[in-house]
Formats: sequence, C-alpha cells, structure tokens
Amino acid sequence: MTVGGVTERDLIARIRRQLPADPDWVLVGIGDDAAVVEPERNRVEVVSVDALVEGVHFDRRFMPPDAIGHRALAVNLSDLAAMGAAPRLALLSLALPAALPLADFDGIVSGIAALAARSRLHMVGGNLTRSTGPLVIDITVIGTVKRRQALIRSGARPGDALYVSGTIGAAMAGRLLLSESNRRLATDESGLTTGDFGRTSDDRRLAAAFLRPVPRLRLGTLLARNRAATACIDLSDGLSDGICRIAEASGVGAIIDAEAVPLDPQARALFESRGLDALGEAVTGGDDYELLIAARPRFRARLSGPIRHGDAPLTRIGVCTADRALLLRRDRALVPLPLGGYAHFGA
Amino acid sequence: MTVGGVTERDLIARIRRQLPADPDWVLVGIGDDAAVVEPERNRVEVVSVDALVEGVHFDRRFMPPDAIGHRALAVNLSDLAAMGAAPRLALLSLALPAALPLADFDGIVSGIAALAARSRLHMVGGNLTRSTGPLVIDITVIGTVKRRQALIRSGARPGDALYVSGTIGAAMAGRLLLSESNRRLATDESGLTTGDFGRTSDDRRLAAAFLRPVPRLRLGTLLARNRAATACIDLSDGLSDGICRIAEASGVGAIIDAEAVPLDPQARALFESRGLDALGEAVTGGDDYELLIAARPRFRARLSGPIRHGDAPLTRIGVCTADRALLLRRDRALVPLPLGGYAHFGA
Repeated sequence: MTVGGVTERDLIARIRRQLPADPDWVLVGIGDDAAVVEPERNRVEVVSVDALVEGVHFDRRFMPPDAIGHRALAVNLSDLAAMGAAPRLALLSLALPAALPLADFDGIVSGIAALAARSRLHMVGGNLTRSTGPLVIDITVIGTVKRRQALIRSGARPGDALYVSGTIGAAMAGRLLLSESNRRLATDESGLTTGDFGRTSDDRRLAAAFLRPVPRLRLGTLLARNRAATACIDLSDGLSDGICRIAEASGVGAIIDAEAVPLDPQARALFESRGLDALGEAVTGGDDYELLIAARPRFRARLSGPIRHGDAPLTRIGVCTADRALLLRRDRALVPLPLGGYAHFGA
Repeated sequence: MTVGGVTERDLIARIRRQLPADPDWVLVGIGDDAAVVEPERNRVEVVSVDALVEGVHFDRRFMPPDAIGHRALAVNLSDLAAMGAAPRLALLSLALPAALPLADFDGIVSGIAALAARSRLHMVGGNLTRSTGPLVIDITVIGTVKRRQALIRSGARPGDALYVSGTIGAAMAGRLLLSESNRRLATDESGLTTGDFGRTSDDRRLAAAFLRPVPRLRLGTLLARNRAATACIDLSDGLSDGICRIAEASGVGAIIDAEAVPLDPQARALFESRGLDALGEAVTGGDDYELLIAARPRFRARLSGPIRHGDAPLTRIGVCTADRALLLRRDRALVPLPLGGYAHFGA
C-alpha cells in the first residue's frame, strides 16, 4: 500500500492519530485553512524553516523512516537551540512520491511526532502534496525566548573564548559507517538490513549520532537565561563552518587549539582506522548539531552552569581575535583552519 | 548561468537584494540560525504553509518565473484571507534543481517579493537546498487577527446564506487556454512564446486569472471585523469542494442555486465554445481563490459593506440546510452538487 493509493484526507487522519490533543493556546488546529494560535506573553518569537530532500539529505533505501522524520525535525530544533529559544509549535509540509509505502509515511510521521512530544513542540498544521520526484520534508518551527535573551551570531568580540558543546565527529563517523554499509548492501545482496550495519555497540552509537541527533535545546535555553554567550550557532554544517560564520557576522577572527577540540574517541579511532585525518574530518564534517558559543572570559564561571545542569559539557577550544584570520594551532604551528563547505550550490 | 554554478551565499544575496529593509518588529532577520520577531499586541496569530511542486502545480516551460513566484505566495495569502487575517511575515523554503537558470531563480523571487510588498508581508527568513528532482517552493505565512474575529469553517448553521466573492471560472478557463497553447507550442515549434498564447485581451485576462490570482485579503479582514460570517473558506480547490468542506466542518447540508452562481462571462463563453458544461467546469475547477462565506440572514446588510468598500462583490448562491445533502437547483430540479476533487493522492 502506497500513499498514492489513499486520499489526502486519509493521510491527514494518519498524521492526527499520532499527535496529542491541542493545548489551550491552539485556538484552531489542523483542519482549517490555517491554524490560529495565541502568542506567548512577554516573549519574542523565533521562527525557522528547514527542508530535507531525498537524495540530498537522506537515502530512503538505507535510513529507517522514523530516523528520517527525527532528523527532519531535529535540524529545525537545533536552530531554535542556537537562538536560545524554547520550541512551541511547528508546521509540517510534505511532498510525497506516489510510490512511497504507507508504512514509510507512518514511520516518518512517528519519528517527527516522538521528537516533537519530547521537545514540547506542538504540530498545529501543515500541507501535503504529491511530488513528481524526491520526498521533501519541510518543517517550520516557532519557538519563544525573552526579548533580550535571544542568542545571535554577531556579538562575538576579540578576546571572547570559543566553546563547543559535547563532542564532535560522531555523526560524521556514523555517516561514514552507514555509507560503507550501504555500498556492501548495494553490491553483495547478502540480505543485510539497515539494522545490521552496526556490528558493534560502538558502531551503533556512531550511527545513532548521525541518524538521531539530539538538539541541544536545554543548553540553548540555559545560555539564553544566563547571558554569558556573546554569540551562538549550531554546528549543522560543521565546526569550521560555524567558526567562519560567527567570525564573519561578528567581524572577528579566531585561533582554535587543535588539542582542545573534543573529538569523539570512537569517531577518532574509526577515522584513523580508515587512514583519514580525524581532526580534519571532524571539524569540516557537519551533522553534529552541537552548539558553538563565544563568551567573555569574565563570564567563564557562568558556563559551568550548563555543565552542572547536565545537558552537555562545554569545552573551551579557542579565542576570538581582532585579526580576521581563522587559524588552527596544531603541533605548535599556526595553520589556516581547514574549511570544508560546498563551494557551489550544485555540488 | 544556473543556480548550480553559484554559492548558497550568492543566492541568498540575490534574494535580499529584492527585499525591503526589515521593519522594527523584526529583531533578527535573514542571516542567522532563525529569525526573531516581536509578536503583534492584542492579536492572535494565523499560521499556514503551502507548497508548489514543479510538474504538479506548475510547468516551468510554459509559466513565466514571476508568475510561479506570485502563485506560490498567493495561495498562502488566500489561506490568510479565508481566516480574516492580515499578512505579517513569511519564510521561503526553496528546493532548487542545479540546472535552474539564475534568471528564472531571480524571476521567481521577484514574483514573490512584488506580491509580498503589495500585501504588507515581510520575508524574515527561509532555507535553500538542492533538489534532485523538481523545483519545490514552500512558503510559510503568519498573519494576525483579533482574538474573536478569526473566520473558521465550522460555524455555519441551517438557514445561513452562502455567498461567493467575485466571479468563478476565469482561472480554470485560463488554465485551459494555457494548456491548449502549450500543446501547440509542444507540437508546432512555430516560435511562439508564453506571452503569445493570449490572442485577444479576453484570453489574456483569463490567463492572468490563472497565472496571477489576487488573494481576497481586504475582503477577509473586512469580514473578520464586521462579524457577519459564520464560516469562510477559500476556493483553492473549487466552489463545490469549498461547499463540501464548510458543510462537513459545520454539520450542515446546502442547496446551491445554479442560476445564481457568478460565472465569469468570458470563461462561460470559452467553456461553451469547447462544448463543455460551463457551470460544471467552473464549480468543480479550482484555482479561483475567491472566498465562500456563510452568514446569518439577519446580517445580510453587513455584507454590503465589503461590496461598498470595493474589494469584491459578494453574490448569494444558496443556503445551508439541516439535511446534510449537497444539492444543486438547476432547471427547477434538485440534483446532487457535482463534486470534482482528486479521489486518490496519487491521481
């Protein structure tokens, strides 16, 4: 059974079945021309949209449907986290190939619904349409934050310390494992399923870091409240990309200490076992969804708060400089920070 | 030059060039992880998302790029109009095939930007990604309305009169003309361009009704304020679909008077010249973006307001009934209302 075999009304009913009842601030929910919501008092609104496109961001053949749904929402929530906002509501817009199995449709929705419930995010509406090509999942999220507490990219000043949450590299290593496994699946037809690629618990942990990233919502809201951060961004496009963007928006440069970058140990081992430069892979690779923060040195003590509150440790990895260069201190030498990134949109 | 040949940063700069400066309620605009906006005081928010997919909703070979952009935003604004909301802000999410010419990209954005400016809608952010298949334009809009003034689908009661704004059928006729012209273009290679299909000013007017629909924003906000309407919906999927949805949401039936339906005269002439049943085509065809309204008979005088204010005439076309049947009174007989609509999602 595919989505092409049922009506739009059926598909909407299948989505609603997975969603909780509307809270009282939703005045009109799913089923009218638009949703009507009461804004939250004494808060400003943080709005963002992100799309996952099949063949660009995920491969349906090798990624479980609920992980696709999870990721589609997680990338949006990570944007809210980077602004210090608490999630409130979302709209889901799906462009569906007619041949998409209904079970996959339900799985994608369940991945979204489960993460929404855990994140106190309420789905108030959306749109369904056919796609003549890939599956496209477009999610708009709205969060809230106190007026002067929103975290932005542009407030870093020379002398501010740079911190990163958690560890980096695990998602990139997980993606590598998945793509290796996919190549095996595609060539040897040995009957492996997606669940099998992780031969060890370490492998499974790395794959999960890619498949089901956890947006740093709690850390974001803590940072918004304690006002220690002068700039913040999420690492969806990698650590060096994040450093680049904060530096550009703030008009500063940076020196990063290679030794200090908190590489995930199992990711490091995996990269090294493949003959790759672990640090280079981890700082240019994306998908980690950690936060990168700039903070005044005198507010250092405030950054222990988020650590104590248990969301994610923060590691000091470098400093903002008046000189606009982006440098990496590695083996006692200063070298240009390796920049990954897609030169061209068509790449 | 195609979008695949430039960077994402270039594309964002090309969009920003077409947008006005941020109003003061936009605290953080395009260029951060998310936008931050101040909510409007004493208003509730109306949020909606709609997507246009190439090959499903438009054909790039035959539709001018700015018309594609215009339509993509107009369908969203029409949802706001149907709720009685005034537009405020939007997010634009584009999935772009690498081969899309940059000139088409600019044209699509200009169609969106021009309608946004006319509608007092401000673009606060968005997302750009590659598409491995069709061009997908996903727009989220947020409007505002006073708390108890939002128009919904579910308030119609037996005895309420049904009104439709403007005339219907022109967009459907325009689409017919365009598809005929496209067939000629595809077969005779005579060097005609999209601009040529309209041989007469009537043809051009009909085509424009399809290519550049005008959402009934002013009428919607007037209706929200004067509280005459018990239900409202836009006719994006056709008049009979709109009747069906109001009836279902409100738990009523309806009798529509065929003679009273305000068919566009040129559309009627075109349908008849092709041997088609003009009324049937017009009520089942979509794309008109007029409003369908239910109103208590005693508030009839209030509905002359919108007419005097000049946005669009309202025509009484029937009545809501306690019996749940949807009927058409035609040639003195009551027949089932012709329902178009897509039975299956894959259709």
